Amino acid sequence: MESWNPGAARNAILDFVERATSPGVGFIEPGDRIATFDNDGTLWVEQPLPVQFNFIFAALIEAVKETPSLATEQPYKAIIEKDHDFFEKVGLQDPDAVSALEGAIARAWHDSTPDRFESEAQSFLEGARSERFGRPSTELVYQPMMELLELLRTNGFRVFICSGGGRDFMRVMSDNAFGIPRENVIGSAPRYEFRVGQLHRTDEVLGGVALGAGKPEHIFAATGRLPAIAGGNSDGDIEMLEAASFRILISHDDAEREFTYTEGAERAFAEAEKSGWTVVSIKNDWKVVFG
Amino acid sequence: MESWNPGAARNAILDFVERATSPGVGFIEPGDRIATFDNDGTLWVEQPLPVQFNFIFAALIEAVKETPSLATEQPYKAIIEKDHDFFEKVGLQDPDAVSALEGAIARAWHDSTPDRFESEAQSFLEGARSERFGRPSTELVYQPMMELLELLRTNGFRVFICSGGGRDFMRVMSDNAFGIPRENVIGSAPRYEFRVGQLHRTDEVLGGVALGAGKPEHIFAATGRLPAIAGGNSDGDIEMLEAASFRILISHDDAEREFTYTEGAERAFAEAEKSGWTVVSIKNDWKVVFG
Repeated sequence: MESWNPGAARNAILDFVERATSPGVGFIEPGDRIATFDNDGTLWVEQPLPVQFNFIFAALIEAVKETPSLATEQPYKAIIEKDHDFFEKVGLQDPDAVSALEGAIARAWHDSTPDRFESEAQSFLEGARSERFGRPSTELVYQPMMELLELLRTNGFRVFICSGGGRDFMRVMSDNAFGIPRENVIGSAPRYEFRVGQLHRTDEVLGGVALGAGKPEHIFAATGRLPAIAGGNSDGDIEMLEAASFRILISHDDAEREFTYTEGAERAFAEAEKSGWTVVSIKNDWKVVFG
Repeated sequence: MESWNPGAARNAILDFVERATSPGVGFIEPGDRIATFDNDGTLWVEQPLPVQFNFIFAALIEAVKETPSLATEQPYKAIIEKDHDFFEKVGLQDPDAVSALEGAIARAWHDSTPDRFESEAQSFLEGARSERFGRPSTELVYQPMMELLELLRTNGFRVFICSGGGRDFMRVMSDNAFGIPRENVIGSAPRYEFRVGQLHRTDEVLGGVALGAGKPEHIFAATGRLPAIAGGNSDGDIEMLEAASFRILISHDDAEREFTYTEGAERAFAEAEKSGWTVVSIKNDWKVVFG
């Protein structure tokens, strides 16, 4: 935890881990030590757009090249026109926007194999760079969070990602970028069908999108438990944080070293204040942001 | 592997692990070392009936006591009349039989919480005994298989159960009985809904039953990979074994120390012979059956 400044957030985390692993009040059985963290904006940078959005956009722009009539439909229209409002709606789980985006994603990878998706995601990630920081996107990982994950692992916690983003994209980079093996990545995902010795992607979303109530639902399905500790940064994380014993909410308040924004996290911060969640200020609590 | 007799099966397993972890042909990247094993009849005794069936039957008999008219419907009728044929149909995935059983299970635990299910399963397991062996059912674990799991773990494999049986029942006992933590248990399961800070069971089966093609489908969803090594004992395991690099098929051929049966595994043994899967004879390959 050497990248954390002394203060209330660091103290609360160290205190939680100390109690969780010591006999007495707050002790957590080793089997129950499940830690879950949101991905974009919690473990790495999500501005100006989550990295995976750019991957999906590139595929959907290809689809428009093949089928120009799509250009007048959503989400293709919003991508071409760089219509930020549409994607804010997606973030806020507007049913029409979510359904249009899911439909386009299903169309782009209809019936494809995991190998095809993985090699496309891999190629994209190799070239993905942040303009703002002039670095590969996969390096824009929050160093203090990596130290927190390591602290948790050392104390017997199994660390999972739980993201509304696409599970299979994250699984391509989670081990290298975060040290989280792919079987510990929970997220929104298509159902695959096994036919003639091979997996084929269907157009169904397996168990619903892993946002809001979908987060604790997916976490229980994957682990058989609700989290002992959870971390997030937006309204889509509220139910996951509610379901946890110890809650961390990241505040993006450092315009100089990262970004300043609260859009889509207003309810989460109100809940954090009401319920005493541990708010982590990037500006004040982190000595460094990136490794 | 001290409970294994020298012979072809033991040699094949040791050779697979040696190659998987040594540079050269057969090497398996550490991230890809996923091992999956069927549960009933592969890790522990499944005769005369899988333990979980007795748990479900007890709940369904309770349902008939509350609603006597159910006694004329399936699967209640088959349970009351001890109609073995009906449950063979379930094992062979007859759609009507499977759907009747799923419906009755959904009805019995409709809207219940994970805590309720867990405490019922725990109580049942504490009292479950095998008449044949005069021992608690949870002790009827195959010692040689436990040694194989340990060998795999020592060599960097992550070991999962993948069973057509109910995931949440297995999760109550997998850690104590097999040393497999509940997050490594894959199986058939209801979808849960998170409402008002609590998970509630729905009547839907999440991602389909984990039998046949459902096994590799569930394994990919849970781990992001197909297995490097898999073990099973029946026709419901064929697709999981096909999907793996190294395949183990348990032959129940020891009437004296366990049971002799091939029903429901005929296609699997034909496939094993055709494709050179490693067949493990309980009679010949295991020095001891139980610990």
